[in-house]
Amino acid sequence: MTDDVARSWAYLSRVAEPPCPELAALVARVGAVEAADRVRRGEVGDELARLTEARREIDCVAADLDLLARLGGRLIVADDADWPLIAFRSFRGVDSRARPQAHPPMVLWALGQLQLTDVEDRGCSIVGTRAATAYGEHVAADLAAGLAERDVAVVSGGAYGIDGVAHRATLASEGLTVAVLASGIDVPYPAGHAALLRRIADQGLIVSEYPPGVRPARYRFLTRNRLVAALTGATVVVEAGLRSGAANTAAWAHALGRPVCAVPGPVTSSASAGCHALLRGGAELVTRAADVVELVGRAGELAPELPRPTSPLDHLEDVERRVYDALPARGARTADQVAVAAGLPATQVLGPLATLELVGLVTRRDGRWKLAFR
Amino acid sequence: MTDDVARSWAYLSRVAEPPCPELAALVARVGAVEAADRVRRGEVGDELARLTEARREIDCVAADLDLLARLGGRLIVADDADWPLIAFRSFRGVDSRARPQAHPPMVLWALGQLQLTDVEDRGCSIVGTRAATAYGEHVAADLAAGLAERDVAVVSGGAYGIDGVAHRATLASEGLTVAVLASGIDVPYPAGHAALLRRIADQGLIVSEYPPGVRPARYRFLTRNRLVAALTGATVVVEAGLRSGAANTAAWAHALGRPVCAVPGPVTSSASAGCHALLRGGAELVTRAADVVELVGRAGELAPELPRPTSPLDHLEDVERRVYDALPARGARTADQVAVAAGLPATQVLGPLATLELVGLVTRRDGRWKLAFR
Repeated sequence: MTDDVARSWAYLSRVAEPPCPELAALVARVGAVEAADRVRRGEVGDELARLTEARREIDCVAADLDLLARLGGRLIVADDADWPLIAFRSFRGVDSRARPQAHPPMVLWALGQLQLTDVEDRGCSIVGTRAATAYGEHVAADLAAGLAERDVAVVSGGAYGIDGVAHRATLASEGLTVAVLASGIDVPYPAGHAALLRRIADQGLIVSEYPPGVRPARYRFLTRNRLVAALTGATVVVEAGLRSGAANTAAWAHALGRPVCAVPGPVTSSASAGCHALLRGGAELVTRAADVVELVGRAGELAPELPRPTSPLDHLEDVERRVYDALPARGARTADQVAVAAGLPATQVLGPLATLELVGLVTRRDGRWKLAFR
Repeated sequence: MTDDVARSWAYLSRVAEPPCPELAALVARVGAVEAADRVRRGEVGDELARLTEARREIDCVAADLDLLARLGGRLIVADDADWPLIAFRSFRGVDSRARPQAHPPMVLWALGQLQLTDVEDRGCSIVGTRAATAYGEHVAADLAAGLAERDVAVVSGGAYGIDGVAHRATLASEGLTVAVLASGIDVPYPAGHAALLRRIADQGLIVSEYPPGVRPARYRFLTRNRLVAALTGATVVVEAGLRSGAANTAAWAHALGRPVCAVPGPVTSSASAGCHALLRGGAELVTRAADVVELVGRAGELAPELPRPTSPLDHLEDVERRVYDALPARGARTADQVAVAAGLPATQVLGPLATLELVGLVTRRDGRWKLAFR
């Protein structure tokens, strides 16, 4: 990207509150450089003029790009190899009257070496409440570590609670993790996660739709959530109250046609109430990383069956089992007594008794039968 | 019922291991008295002869009916007013090759005043593992009490763990409860529940397909489970391991076309693993009695919405909220500064600021705006 082009993107990134489909349309038509010039000169249609009026005279492009260079970051824009085409294309399918923010980002500010297209190929969002319980943190860490072990990138929002645990557990497992911020990449939010965000930038990726210095705001969290959902193959909500940002991310995933998963928890825990509401609404119930990999993974990657407790009685035929059950817990019985207890003809219990003796489940003495090991 | 007829039913109840569709077909054709006579004399087809061979000479009818009279019980048979016709008719829809026990009972031995038809109209099964956790017991008690308060009869199997808690909580709420046994009504099982079963007989109902003296056996539990499912409008599994009788009851409910519900729990608890497997297989997730009443209740009885936390920001328009969010946590801003922060034209922030002031969310001083309560 030439300096000229970079400066134009940086200007466009700040001049309208993203996403701004009117601005994106202009850029698509005339290119970033020409679009930035026209906006700066006010030579745009009424609607776009209105949308850019408050900020069009603000010029901190040089400072923004200096900062980006100092941090070692980069801009990711629609004509890069690193642009997640397919992920962002699915916004087209969303009704933008119902979801006014249903538009792809135009510019992403990024810190870190990870390629977004890799995340798009094999990534999963893990999100949840900031007010996580010990249970939720345990499960989030377990899921994130399990996904990391299976080469699935873990995307989240960098918040306290579930988000932070998911990032940390992924880093601890040397997996790839992405934090999508609702503020500029130089504005660590929450402040208590500044060190965590630095580690994510070092080992994974931090991205934001917002230029440097922009502070988070409620509507920016909601706007940001659509990117968390869009960048990954599936979204898992680990814990969420009935009213939570995680439910918003899940709604975006659903609108974008991506699987929405939720982890169940105690019905007595308000931190799981949002998950249960999602599950009642059709979300996929997941209990472990293998369940999730099935949804984000390469085609045909199926979770192994859960191991089931087994019993030596598993391989018995129905009639053998019925005969086995007809023997008393203590003491022995004749074949005729077994027949009466089992409600089977006497001629039909001798075969099963012999089989049961053969496999060591019953023993015979003096013409009477008893359970072995009793 | 005349003594003669009662004696015939009692004989038929014991002579073949239930359910015995061949015997039921004979009874339907020639009546109970004639059917009992023919079986006793061995004047039946080969298949039925084989099925009744082991027990046809056993005659403890007089003792059985004496015992029943002493206990104050009764027989419920297909031509009684108390026969749950609709409940048992749904067995016809089940593939009996896949589920050989998919036949209605022929005779039920009963203790208690409750009518089965009332249960059929408005009853719910609550079942689960014997190895219940404190969480499972808490939820089972809560659900049962909630159903009892809403006049829903609670049906279960009288076992330790979830079953016992469901019965007890229903009794404590002065609700109606039914225990379906896998043994004769005079064989309390488990023995530790003898007193509980007596209370159920006093205040609700105990029923069994098995004549007096019959001891439970593994296949009898499975056979019994179909009645637990058949007698009620819905089945709720509160806690179940991956391999459990409760899952068998749920499978019967599903086969009979009744809603199957499961209560989620911690994914770290093996006592909830069976519930999660059911939920992944399509069972309805329930968290409280109101969710269940919706499924067993009279048409149109809908659970109230869960109360959601509310905020004074709930009723704001999008643009008002965006303006509100653009105000800093501390300190005041001019309308122009707010416009830049929100990315809105200066002319469009004054209206929202005035509204916010009106509802008390922001205050103005010296031409600058700040959040109220800060």
